[in-house]
Amino acid sequence: MSQVVPNEQSPVIELAIDLLSRASVTPEDAGCQKLIAERLSAVGFTNESMVFADTTNLWSRRDTNITIEDQAKTPNTPSNNSNDIVFCFAGHTDVVPVGNLDLWNTPPFEPTIIDGMLYARGAADMKGSLAAMIVATERFVEDHPDHQGSIAYLITSDEEGPFINGTTKVVDTLEARNEKITYCIIGEPSSTNSVGDIVKNGRRGSISATLTVKGKQGHVAYPEHVKNPIHLAMPALIELSQVEWDKGNDYFPATSFQLSNINSGTGATNVVPGHITALFNLRYSTELTDEIIVERVEAILNKHQLDYDIDWTFNGKPFITEHTGAEHGFLHAVSQAILTVTGNETQLSTSGGTSDGRFIAPTGAQVIELGPCNATIHQVNESVSCDDLEKLVDIYYHCLVNVLCSHK
Amino acid sequence: MSQVVPNEQSPVIELAIDLLSRASVTPEDAGCQKLIAERLSAVGFTNESMVFADTTNLWSRRDTNITIEDQAKTPNTPSNNSNDIVFCFAGHTDVVPVGNLDLWNTPPFEPTIIDGMLYARGAADMKGSLAAMIVATERFVEDHPDHQGSIAYLITSDEEGPFINGTTKVVDTLEARNEKITYCIIGEPSSTNSVGDIVKNGRRGSISATLTVKGKQGHVAYPEHVKNPIHLAMPALIELSQVEWDKGNDYFPATSFQLSNINSGTGATNVVPGHITALFNLRYSTELTDEIIVERVEAILNKHQLDYDIDWTFNGKPFITEHTGAEHGFLHAVSQAILTVTGNETQLSTSGGTSDGRFIAPTGAQVIELGPCNATIHQVNESVSCDDLEKLVDIYYHCLVNVLCSHK
Repeated sequence: MSQVVPNEQSPVIELAIDLLSRASVTPEDAGCQKLIAERLSAVGFTNESMVFADTTNLWSRRDTNITIEDQAKTPNTPSNNSNDIVFCFAGHTDVVPVGNLDLWNTPPFEPTIIDGMLYARGAADMKGSLAAMIVATERFVEDHPDHQGSIAYLITSDEEGPFINGTTKVVDTLEARNEKITYCIIGEPSSTNSVGDIVKNGRRGSISATLTVKGKQGHVAYPEHVKNPIHLAMPALIELSQVEWDKGNDYFPATSFQLSNINSGTGATNVVPGHITALFNLRYSTELTDEIIVERVEAILNKHQLDYDIDWTFNGKPFITEHTGAEHGFLHAVSQAILTVTGNETQLSTSGGTSDGRFIAPTGAQVIELGPCNATIHQVNESVSCDDLEKLVDIYYHCLVNVLCSHK
Repeated sequence: MSQVVPNEQSPVIELAIDLLSRASVTPEDAGCQKLIAERLSAVGFTNESMVFADTTNLWSRRDTNITIEDQAKTPNTPSNNSNDIVFCFAGHTDVVPVGNLDLWNTPPFEPTIIDGMLYARGAADMKGSLAAMIVATERFVEDHPDHQGSIAYLITSDEEGPFINGTTKVVDTLEARNEKITYCIIGEPSSTNSVGDIVKNGRRGSISATLTVKGKQGHVAYPEHVKNPIHLAMPALIELSQVEWDKGNDYFPATSFQLSNINSGTGATNVVPGHITALFNLRYSTELTDEIIVERVEAILNKHQLDYDIDWTFNGKPFITEHTGAEHGFLHAVSQAILTVTGNETQLSTSGGTSDGRFIAPTGAQVIELGPCNATIHQVNESVSCDDLEKLVDIYYHCLVNVLCSHK
C-alpha cells in the first residue's frame, strides 16, 4: 500500500485535492469557485459570480475572436461559423453529506490516496472532473491560444440539493441576455467500468404527482354507508401502472411509471378511511411531454369516475443530443477524444436520474455528460482513480481540440 | 325546558341515575356491580364476583325449582323442561371515554334530565338498560315469586375495551363447570327510532388481517432493478375487494371485505419502496367460517404469486338466533313482549358491529340484543328517553313472563 502526499502530485491530482479539502456540502461552496475562478482568470477567462439566495454560481468565459454581442446575433441554433461556438464545461462544487462518518476509512474532507485511488467526499461526484476540466483547459489554451469560438464554465453549488438557485437560475440569466451555449460537457460521473466507457447523451424527463382520492369514511361494519377510497382508487392506480405509455425510441427506453408511496387509513382496523394518497413518478422519453402525460393520467382518473385532487411536480423535461444530421459533430468529437485517449469506443446512454443538463439543453445547447466511474458516488469512502483523472484531462483536452480547432 | 331532580324519579330513572353518576370508563366498574349485586341479592339472587386482571365481572343467579346440578344434566341443548331454563340478562357497566368535554352541555357523569331525556355518558350504552333489567326483574320476582327456571345476570366492565377479561372469561368459567345459559337478552341499544323497533338476533363474524407484501426497493429511475410492491400487491387487493364471498342468507347480508389501511413508501418520491402493508377486515355471515376465509384469501394471494406475510386476527364468529323450529319460542316471546308494550312489530337485524353475544352464543345459548335507541351512543351528550326506559322495564318484564311463566 502506498500513500502519497499532495505536493508530489500531478496538476490534476493537486487541484482535485485542493477542491476536495473544502467541506462544500450543498449549498456550501466553501471557496471552491474562488479557486476555480483564479485559475481560469490566469488563462484569459472573465468571471462572473452569480449568487442566488444560499447558492453560489460561477459563469466564466474566454472569448477569442468574437464578442458576446456577435454571438448574440445567432442565438437560436448552433452556428455554422465555428467562431460563434461556445463550448461550456458545467458542473458543481457542492457534495452530498458524508453519511455515517464511522464507516469512512479516511476523513471525507482530508483527501487521501491509497493504492492509486483518491478518497474523499466528492472525489467522483464531481470535484475530480472539475480539476480535470481546468487542467485540460489550461493546457489547451497554452497549446492553442488562438482557438476558435469561446470556452465557458457554468459551475453551481446547488446540484445535489433543491436545484432552485443553481444552474437553472444561471441559465435564466444567460437566456435573458440572449447568451447561448452551443456545446456542453457536464462532468457528472458517467462511466461504469473504465473512464469514458459511457457518455450520457440525454436524460429522461421526470414528472411526479401527489394524488388524493376521496371516499367516505365510516365503520367497516356498515359497508353500505361508506365509499372506500382504497377500493375506488386501486383500479385506476393499476391501470396507470400497467398502461404502455410509449415504446421508447432509439435513445430512450419505454417510459416508466412507478408508485413510490401510497397511504390510507386511520390506523384502526374497523374504520374505512376517508381518502387515499398516492405519489407516483414517471421517467419519460422524448416521445412524450409533460402535457401529454398530465392529460393521459387525468383521463384515466376521470374514466374511473374518481373524486380526486392531483398536484403535479415537473422535475425536468427529457433531452437528447442526437448522433444525426447537423448535430453529428459534437458527439463525434467527444467519441473521437475518448477513442484517442483510451483506445475504446464509448457507448451512449440516457439511463439514470436527472442532471443539470435538463436546464441547459432546453436553450438549444447540445449537452452530454462525461466523467469518471460512478461506483462509489453518494456512498461512504467515495473515490476516484488517479489514473482516470489523468485520462479525463486528456479526454477533455481532445474534446476542446476536436471542437475548437477542427475547422482550422 | 323542565329539569327534574333525581329523588322525584320512578325506580328505573332513579337507578339509572345512580349508575350513571359513577365514572366507570373501561375497565373501571366504579361500584356499579356492587350496587347491582345488592339489588339482586334483595330479591333472591346469589352473586359471584369474577375479577380477571383489571376487569370486574358479576355472575348472579336466582334459581327457584331446580339446582345447578339439575341444570347441568342437560347442558347442550335448550331444554324442553321449562324448569331447566336459564334466562340471562347480559350487559356492561363500563362506558367509553367522554370525548371532548367542552362539547357536553351537561357534565357527563352528572346525569341530567332535560325535556324528558336523561343525559350522561352511558345513558344509552348501556346503564339505562341495566337499570331497566333490574327494575323489571324486581317487579317480576315480586309478581311471580314461583316462576319457572332461573334468572341470571352476566355483567362485565370490559365490553368497550379489549374484551379480554370480560364476558369471554366469565363464559369460559361457566363452561368449565358445565353451567349453561338458555336464553340471553343483552341490553345493547338495538333500537333505531323507537324502543323495541329493532332486535338484533345475531351478529356477523369479524376477521382482520395485516398483510405485508414484499418487493425490492430501489430508485424510480431504474425500474429494471426494482420490484414495486405496490404494483405487485394491487391486483390481488382488488380481487379481494371485488370477489363475491357469499350471497348472505335469510339473516345476514353478503359478506363484506374492506381495506381499512394501506401503507407503503419511504416518503421520497424517487424511491420504489421495499414492501407494502395492508390491513383489511371481513364482516361475514354464517355461510362462511374463519377457516374458509383464510383459505380463500391465501389462495388469491398465492395465485398472484406474491411474497407475503399475513397475520390474522379472529375477532368473533358469527351467530344467529333463528326464528324457526325448536328455537321459535324465545324470539316469539321477545317480539310479543315488544308488541304488548309498544303496540309495534319488531324487526330482526344482524347488522352493525360485534357484541359480547359472540362469546355467549357459541355455548348454545339463544342470544338477542334489545335496548334503547342508539343515535347518541359513543358521542357527546349521550342520552336516553326516560319514557323509553319505562317501556324497556315493561318489555323486559313481559319477556320474563313470556319465557318463565308461559308454561304454567
